[in-house]
Amino acid sequence: MPSFAETTVRTEIPGPISKANTKRLDTIFDARAVHFVVDYNKSEGNYIVDVDGNRYLDVYAQIASIPVGYNNKTLIEAAKSPEMTSALANRPAVGNFPSDQWVDILRDGLMKVAPKGLSYIFTAQSGSEANELAYKAAFMLYSRRQRGEAEWNEEEINSCLENSKPGSPELAIMSFKNSFHGRGFGSLSTTRSKAVHKLDIPSFNWPQAPFPALKYPLEEHVEENTAEEKQCLEEVERIMTTWHCPVVGLIVEPIQAEGGDNHASPAFFQGLRDITRKHSAVLIADEVQTGFGATGSFWAHDHWNLTSPPDIVTFSKKAQTAGYFFGNEMLIPDKAYRQFNTWIGDPARVIMCKAVIKEILDKKLVEQTAYVGTHLYAELSRLAAKYPEHIQNLRGEGQGTFIAFDTKDSAGLVRSMRHIGVNIGTCGKNTVRLRPMLIFEEKHIPILVNALYKVIGAL
Amino acid sequence: MPSFAETTVRTEIPGPISKANTKRLDTIFDARAVHFVVDYNKSEGNYIVDVDGNRYLDVYAQIASIPVGYNNKTLIEAAKSPEMTSALANRPAVGNFPSDQWVDILRDGLMKVAPKGLSYIFTAQSGSEANELAYKAAFMLYSRRQRGEAEWNEEEINSCLENSKPGSPELAIMSFKNSFHGRGFGSLSTTRSKAVHKLDIPSFNWPQAPFPALKYPLEEHVEENTAEEKQCLEEVERIMTTWHCPVVGLIVEPIQAEGGDNHASPAFFQGLRDITRKHSAVLIADEVQTGFGATGSFWAHDHWNLTSPPDIVTFSKKAQTAGYFFGNEMLIPDKAYRQFNTWIGDPARVIMCKAVIKEILDKKLVEQTAYVGTHLYAELSRLAAKYPEHIQNLRGEGQGTFIAFDTKDSAGLVRSMRHIGVNIGTCGKNTVRLRPMLIFEEKHIPILVNALYKVIGAL
Repeated sequence: MPSFAETTVRTEIPGPISKANTKRLDTIFDARAVHFVVDYNKSEGNYIVDVDGNRYLDVYAQIASIPVGYNNKTLIEAAKSPEMTSALANRPAVGNFPSDQWVDILRDGLMKVAPKGLSYIFTAQSGSEANELAYKAAFMLYSRRQRGEAEWNEEEINSCLENSKPGSPELAIMSFKNSFHGRGFGSLSTTRSKAVHKLDIPSFNWPQAPFPALKYPLEEHVEENTAEEKQCLEEVERIMTTWHCPVVGLIVEPIQAEGGDNHASPAFFQGLRDITRKHSAVLIADEVQTGFGATGSFWAHDHWNLTSPPDIVTFSKKAQTAGYFFGNEMLIPDKAYRQFNTWIGDPARVIMCKAVIKEILDKKLVEQTAYVGTHLYAELSRLAAKYPEHIQNLRGEGQGTFIAFDTKDSAGLVRSMRHIGVNIGTCGKNTVRLRPMLIFEEKHIPILVNALYKVIGAL
Repeated sequence: MPSFAETTVRTEIPGPISKANTKRLDTIFDARAVHFVVDYNKSEGNYIVDVDGNRYLDVYAQIASIPVGYNNKTLIEAAKSPEMTSALANRPAVGNFPSDQWVDILRDGLMKVAPKGLSYIFTAQSGSEANELAYKAAFMLYSRRQRGEAEWNEEEINSCLENSKPGSPELAIMSFKNSFHGRGFGSLSTTRSKAVHKLDIPSFNWPQAPFPALKYPLEEHVEENTAEEKQCLEEVERIMTTWHCPVVGLIVEPIQAEGGDNHASPAFFQGLRDITRKHSAVLIADEVQTGFGATGSFWAHDHWNLTSPPDIVTFSKKAQTAGYFFGNEMLIPDKAYRQFNTWIGDPARVIMCKAVIKEILDKKLVEQTAYVGTHLYAELSRLAAKYPEHIQNLRGEGQGTFIAFDTKDSAGLVRSMRHIGVNIGTCGKNTVRLRPMLIFEEKHIPILVNALYKVIGAL
């Protein structure tokens, strides 16, 4: 079996031990999506090791959610801290009975990286939950503005318990074609990427706008792409002003990930900010996959150069926890207990997040990712020039290591890559997405790129 | 300030240090619902200690979610284990890359307490998420049966991405008046307890059935209560057969908790099982608050003596993690990745759950709770006999420590109880609910009951 530098493949994939373990698991837990079973004790840094002893360079990173490498020392220290032991053994209802440390865990962690202009936080447990909480904040803000200083009336109170108007109003969140915002009933109603996520599940009658379909290379299609973005912006505004009910929020990924790594220019996002401000809709930047440094900025929306920030920014994945940031006090609901639940996140994971942030800032990993991304992109450009029929629409220049390309058989390519020791992921219809960790260094580039040369050269 | 045995109250509540900490927190995180700030390092067993040094007997237990006491030794051991360190530092996408230990963490933990007849599990992060996953399983099952062996067709695939029929079908989940099933957009559509949870949030047009309003004492109202339950069952069947779209699932709490601690008899639940089986609807027992022993059975639905189990049982809170159990293989969706998300729960919390289960089984805490509950109920009966105008509709006999009563000013009573060192909760409109941990012993009964005598005697 081949060995690429620090990668080793000893067995077929999945190997016999992986298969046996998966078979046992499948008797109690749906294991059909298992790629291989992992020995996390042997995994380290950028390398994931399976139970058959195969060692892969991991540029998929648990669906883009490992920030600073397997068995990172700073994270292990946090995991072993007395603070963590207490958070695990004494799980609080954070909204009612926070620990004396809670405020400082937030201040010394998540609030250190709060997007510019957003000074409040609400914690959650998944990206899907974070987005739904953001939608609820947007709905409550809209109704609060409508209501003015008036108290809730009897009709509102009674009708909402019956799921009927006016207490349960018809209001909408707009999202984009090919977007992915999660799998809850609200977040799934805004997800538009694949039928496998949505089929058979009831959804809200909410609108979707077209997301720009840019042509690559960008420098050869400047006019077309500008026109495309302008048309999409017009459509956003048209839908927002003509939908059968008020559209109170717009959610957008800075780079559509699950839907195929689709990019748009800062001008497009500036346009969204202008339209949402004009029509008093809440602009939600879904940074679940783009946040925490992979694009070479801590937040991908930093690249937009907005004059005023998105109203809400949601996060999860590399944060190892989830939640949303916001700036406008009016997004805090009119009464306590409206945005609330038993746990409101998990302090244990928020402590891990604090360690992740410390590691990112101390080691300057965002800057490193920007630098490494530039070199990685250049190498992939050379590969694309050599194999233009196999590497198409290379994208992500200037976006750190958040790079992707289209290829005829993305699933086949990923399988072949795994067989020579590189764990890599797909998205959209025929896209290969790179999601290395923030500790991916220049020295790892040749391991990844040489494997691609080998696999594509053999096609 | 008064002191009741092992409780101590030194300051007003919240005390000055609590208030200062809450004020700091409120500048970044909505802290309006904070009762007091906790020193979890000083809290132990049934006693919670705040930052002002006040020590309370805790019979609210983080909204019914602390199972085996603060700083429980078995839980601390699990929190410090190498298995935990790895689970925290290497958070997996469990569906794609499970650890080699994952199957045994489930087998040696959650599967040991799987409800009779339910041999599969899906893990989640909150009760709300667990319920929504259950609804999705119910919707996919219904469509799968309708579709038979046919593959998904183009119209279904395309329409679901537009949130329109037939891919996004009109299908419903039925719930009961006064129920609480969570706060996501699907779970909130089934929650019917309070306007504060629901007002201004769009919801699905799903039906609610009346839940029996039993009269107490039960032995004096046998005929009325039997008639009431019969009428509710008839209404369930009437709605199920006449609703404007198929009702594919029915969710019910064994004891409605948030909605006021409303009980029904085993016969009522047997009736629900019969109706749902007759109409091929999925019966979901929401054991988020009742599960894990507090009713004197591991699962509250054990009290129902069903001939066949609920189709799905959801759990969270005392489990310290969340998810659902099921038995019918057809509830596993037709394809992989349909019931899926990045993390699918959190192995760190599932490891804590394994420790909770070990502690419950080793120490026979369910049996203890049944025993202690009987004595606690007897003491409260005496209290109710002495103060019939203040303790009304005492309920929960034979349901472990899951006991509640109505009183004129439940919020006031809870405030007064806190001021003499007992942390206790409310629910519904005017109900006081007892939610002690499973380690609540006979010796704690007088502390709680004497405090009630004192507070009620002074009214």
